[in-house]
Amino acid sequence: MIEYSYKTIHSLRHAKNRKFFNKFIIEGKRIVESALAYDVKIGQIFCRLKFIEENDYWVQKYLKKGTIVKTIDKKTFLKISTTKSPQGILAVCDIPKQNPIKLTIDRWVYLDRISDPGNIGTLIRSCAWFGIKNIALSYKCADPYNPKSIRAAMGAHFVMNIHTNTDLSIFKNTHRIIAADLKGESASAYEFPKKCVLVLGSEAHGISSQNLNCIEDFVLINKIGSGDSLNVSTAGSILIFLLMNKLK
Amino acid sequence: MIEYSYKTIHSLRHAKNRKFFNKFIIEGKRIVESALAYDVKIGQIFCRLKFIEENDYWVQKYLKKGTIVKTIDKKTFLKISTTKSPQGILAVCDIPKQNPIKLTIDRWVYLDRISDPGNIGTLIRSCAWFGIKNIALSYKCADPYNPKSIRAAMGAHFVMNIHTNTDLSIFKNTHRIIAADLKGESASAYEFPKKCVLVLGSEAHGISSQNLNCIEDFVLINKIGSGDSLNVSTAGSILIFLLMNKLK
Repeated sequence: MIEYSYKTIHSLRHAKNRKFFNKFIIEGKRIVESALAYDVKIGQIFCRLKFIEENDYWVQKYLKKGTIVKTIDKKTFLKISTTKSPQGILAVCDIPKQNPIKLTIDRWVYLDRISDPGNIGTLIRSCAWFGIKNIALSYKCADPYNPKSIRAAMGAHFVMNIHTNTDLSIFKNTHRIIAADLKGESASAYEFPKKCVLVLGSEAHGISSQNLNCIEDFVLINKIGSGDSLNVSTAGSILIFLLMNKLK
Repeated sequence: MIEYSYKTIHSLRHAKNRKFFNKFIIEGKRIVESALAYDVKIGQIFCRLKFIEENDYWVQKYLKKGTIVKTIDKKTFLKISTTKSPQGILAVCDIPKQNPIKLTIDRWVYLDRISDPGNIGTLIRSCAWFGIKNIALSYKCADPYNPKSIRAAMGAHFVMNIHTNTDLSIFKNTHRIIAADLKGESASAYEFPKKCVLVLGSEAHGISSQNLNCIEDFVLINKIGSGDSLNVSTAGSILIFLLMNKLK
C-alpha cells in the first residue's frame, strides 16, 4: 500500500492535484461506510482519536475487515480535512478508470457546464436513487470529485459510472436528446423514449450553443407560482423522477 | 432613510445580529432585481465602481426609479460581502414582520429542524415556483435569512410568507399533516388532500419525536436504484411538485 504524505492529501482539495494523483478525498461516517460497503479500495483510514472514542460501536461495526486505521491529532486532521467542522474520519480513494461510453445503455443524464460542485453531487445522488447509473459531463463542468460534490452525493459516486469531458454529439445517432428548458413542453405530459439523454444546462447560461444543435426535444417543469427558474439539481431531479417513473 | 455603517452591515452575516437589527443582506444582480421588482424597501444599494462600469445596461434598466446607489471601493465591498467572489452589488433589506399563521390557507410546507441554510433557500425557491406561498419552520431550523439561504432562494423570499419558530401542532385540527419518510407509502400514488401540511425532517435526524405525534400520513419517493436517501431539498421539491400537480 502506498502511503501518502499529509501534504499530498492536503493538496487533493485542488482539481489539478486530484487529476495528477488520480485520487480524491472522502470524509465522514456515511461516505466511508458506503465506500466500505461497495468494497472501494481506500487504503488506510485517517481518524482522530476523539472520533474513535466517541464512535465505538460504529468503529467496531464497520472498520473491521482488514481496514488499517491511522489515528492522528486534531491539528493534522484539520490540515487535511476539506470541511470546517470535520467529523474526524477521512480516507483517500482512487478516481475510477473511465471506460468508453457504452451506447447500448438506454438512459443517460448529461451535465452541460454545470459550475457548482454541490449541484453535481446532488444530481449524482439523485441519479443513483432513481437507478440511472450513467452520467456524462461536458468540458468545463466543475469536477465531480471536488470535496463539495463528494459530500453532496453521500456515497453515490461508488455506484455510478461518471464520464467527464464527454461530447454530447456521440449520442446523436442512438439516443433521443432531451433538454430541460423554459421554452419546452410540459415534462409531466412528455413521454420519455426508452433510449434518451436528459441534458441539464449551466445554472447561469443554460445549454451551450454547440450542444443546442444536438437537442431534439425541450421539456419544462410547469411554473404554478413565481420565479425565474428552479435550482438545476432540483429541476434535474424532478425530471429524472419523471423519466424513471413514466408519469403522465 | 437610516444609514448603516459598514461594520453593522458586516455584522449581519451572524443570525443574532440579523435578529437584533431585523435586517438581512441580499447580493448579486438577480436577487436585487427581484427585490426591486417586488418593491421591497432596500434603502441604498452598494456597488463597486467596476460593477457599474461593466453592467451599464443593467444599471440603466433596473436602478432607476429613485434608487440611491452608493459606490464603494473593492476593499470595503469585500468586507461587507457575504461571498468569496462577489458580483459587486449588495443591499440591506428588512426582515418582514411575521403575521400570525392563517389556518384558512390550504397548503403549507413545514421544515422540521433543517440545519443547512442552502437547503432551506432551495426549498423556499421551489415553494415559490410551485405556488405554495406559505412555509413554516420549527425551532432549531437554520435561519432562512442566512446569506446562503438568500442566495439559494434567488429572490423567492420576496414572494413567500416565512414563519419561523412555529409549532407543528397548531395545524392539527384543520390540516392533514403528511411527512416525507422512508417508511411511508408511495407519494406518486398518494392523493394529497386539499388542506395539508407537508413536513420535511432534518437531514441527519428525520422528524423530531415531538412532531411525530402530529403526523397522520407518511409518503416516500420510491427508490429504483440505490442510496440511503435523497437530499432533503430534492425530496421536498419532488413532493411539492406532486402535491401541486396531483399526479397519480
